[in-house]
Amino acid sequence: MTTPELFAKSALLNWEQAIGRATAFFDKLPDESLFQNIAPGKNRVIYLLGHLAAVHDHMLPLLNIGERHYPHLDELFISNPDNLDATLPEGRELRKAWKDINEYITNCLRDWSPEEWLQRHTAVSPEDFEKEPHRNRFTLVLSRARHVDYHLGQLILVKK
Amino acid sequence: MTTPELFAKSALLNWEQAIGRATAFFDKLPDESLFQNIAPGKNRVIYLLGHLAAVHDHMLPLLNIGERHYPHLDELFISNPDNLDATLPEGRELRKAWKDINEYITNCLRDWSPEEWLQRHTAVSPEDFEKEPHRNRFTLVLSRARHVDYHLGQLILVKK
Repeated sequence: MTTPELFAKSALLNWEQAIGRATAFFDKLPDESLFQNIAPGKNRVIYLLGHLAAVHDHMLPLLNIGERHYPHLDELFISNPDNLDATLPEGRELRKAWKDINEYITNCLRDWSPEEWLQRHTAVSPEDFEKEPHRNRFTLVLSRARHVDYHLGQLILVKK
Repeated sequence: MTTPELFAKSALLNWEQAIGRATAFFDKLPDESLFQNIAPGKNRVIYLLGHLAAVHDHMLPLLNIGERHYPHLDELFISNPDNLDATLPEGRELRKAWKDINEYITNCLRDWSPEEWLQRHTAVSPEDFEKEPHRNRFTLVLSRARHVDYHLGQLILVKK
């Protein structure tokens, strides 16, 4: 394996590990626990599940790998804080969205050459990317993997 | 910048961002808040500060960049859970350990060539590394950056 290939392969494994751990957490969690708060007065588990699914759905246009699959999640899980009065999608539907979107992204990452990992992400203009080539898809994936762990650290506080 | 150099540079920025955010959190936190629990019955902030410092101190031998600076932290912050009866180091001392150890590591990372990033970490034997070259220093640094975010997600729950 060449040096660039090894970087790409290692980054893929880092992403898969973050996704795998969070998915294992959600898989083990019974539906009724989705409505627990991670701490008193803080987000419910179901909000974080929807939030993570919506944020990863945003990765499709950002990574330039397709149109969004679940844009309707934004209103409830990104634009607004957790709200007890809101009517949320069923847990089953959110669990499915989380898995589907990650499967889609991971399949794309597996196909990328090292150079494709380092392409511009679409939140950066071509002009800015000329000056700041580190604002690439690789950095975005690393950042989203850290974001998964950020919320996993919170989710783990919930009683099972 | 070559493809391998860009991977290395982007990974360095990812590390610096994770460390920077956690350090900013600790810098803003008054000393008295160090003794708050992140959630009822869960770890105190000071435990997580010591834990993060100790885990990063372990990175020195793992990355083969030197002897440990703060091995005495293990007993309190890695080998044992948070314990209200334990006599902890002062907050000032732990804040300093956290900054010093990260400064040391970051300076090393800045000097690494792409190939140096991909060297074996010392928890893997040379024989296993032959078969699994992704068990390298790059992967270890990515994993520790996610670990910082994991605990930062918990720390952020504390009232300031």
